[in-house]
Amino acid sequence: MQYFEDLAVGQKFISAARRVEAAEITAFAAEYDPQPFHLDDAAAKESVFGGLAASGWHTAAMTMRLIVNSEFRPAGGILGFGGELAWLKPVRPGDELRVESEILETRTSQSRPGQGLVKVRVTTLNQHGEAVQTFTPTLLVSRRPT
Amino acid sequence: MQYFEDLAVGQKFISAARRVEAAEITAFAAEYDPQPFHLDDAAAKESVFGGLAASGWHTAAMTMRLIVNSEFRPAGGILGFGGELAWLKPVRPGDELRVESEILETRTSQSRPGQGLVKVRVTTLNQHGEAVQTFTPTLLVSRRPT
Repeated sequence: MQYFEDLAVGQKFISAARRVEAAEITAFAAEYDPQPFHLDDAAAKESVFGGLAASGWHTAAMTMRLIVNSEFRPAGGILGFGGELAWLKPVRPGDELRVESEILETRTSQSRPGQGLVKVRVTTLNQHGEAVQTFTPTLLVSRRPT
Repeated sequence: MQYFEDLAVGQKFISAARRVEAAEITAFAAEYDPQPFHLDDAAAKESVFGGLAASGWHTAAMTMRLIVNSEFRPAGGILGFGGELAWLKPVRPGDELRVESEILETRTSQSRPGQGLVKVRVTTLNQHGEAVQTFTPTLLVSRRPT
C-alpha cells in the first residue's frame, strides 16, 4: 500500500494482462451499450469499426479491474474525481490488455489535511504495445498518519 | 435519427430514469472495480463514502445505457473519441438517474468529409436534480447523404 508520501512523480506501475473475449464484449454491450458494432460481428463489419469492437466503457471498466489487481494500491483506495479520457484504437476479441499507471503530479490539499491529490496517466495497451485508451485522473490518496 | 446537419448548439435530449439497485452496484464492482466501498455496506460506512456507492465506471456505463435508449440517435451510432469525465457526487442504492445531453459545438472535419464532429455535455442527475457525473465527449456523426 502506498501513502501519499510514498508516491513520486515518474513512478510507474504495470498491471498483469487480461485477454478480451468476444462473449464478454457482447455481454457488456447488451447491458450498458447496446449498439450494433458492440453486439454483432456482421453488423460491426458494416460499421466504422469494420468488425466487433468493445464499448469504450467496457475498456474503461477492464482497465479499472487491471489497476485494482496491480501493485498500485493507494492508501484509502483508488478514489478518482475524474479526468480526461480518450479512446484511441478499437479493442477487439482476442486482444490482451495491460495497463501502465504513471504518477504525473502530487500535491497536498489545504481543504483536506489528511489527504493529498495525485494526478496519474493511465495508459491501456494492447498486445502490440499500442495505446487503446488513456485516462488522466486526479486521485485522493491518504497521507501517512503521524 | 439525427444526421450531423440536424444537430445544433443548444439542443438538449433528456433520457428516461433508471433506478440503481444495491445488487447491481455490488455485481458491477465484483467484476470491474472490487474495492470495499463498492462491495460491502459495512466496509463502505468506514470509508470516505460513508456508505455503499457505485463505482464511477458503473455510473458511466449506466449513463451510456440511458443515452442509447434516449431520443438522441446520432447517425452512424454514438461514437466518441473521449472527453473530460468528472464524478461529482456518490451514486447510492435507490438513486434514480437520468441523463441530459446538450450540444455544445458542431464542426465539419476536413479529414472526414462524410462526418462531422459534435461536442456534447452529458450530465447525469439523481432524483434530487444533483449532477453526479459530467462527461464532455466529442462524437463522430455521419453527414446527410447528398
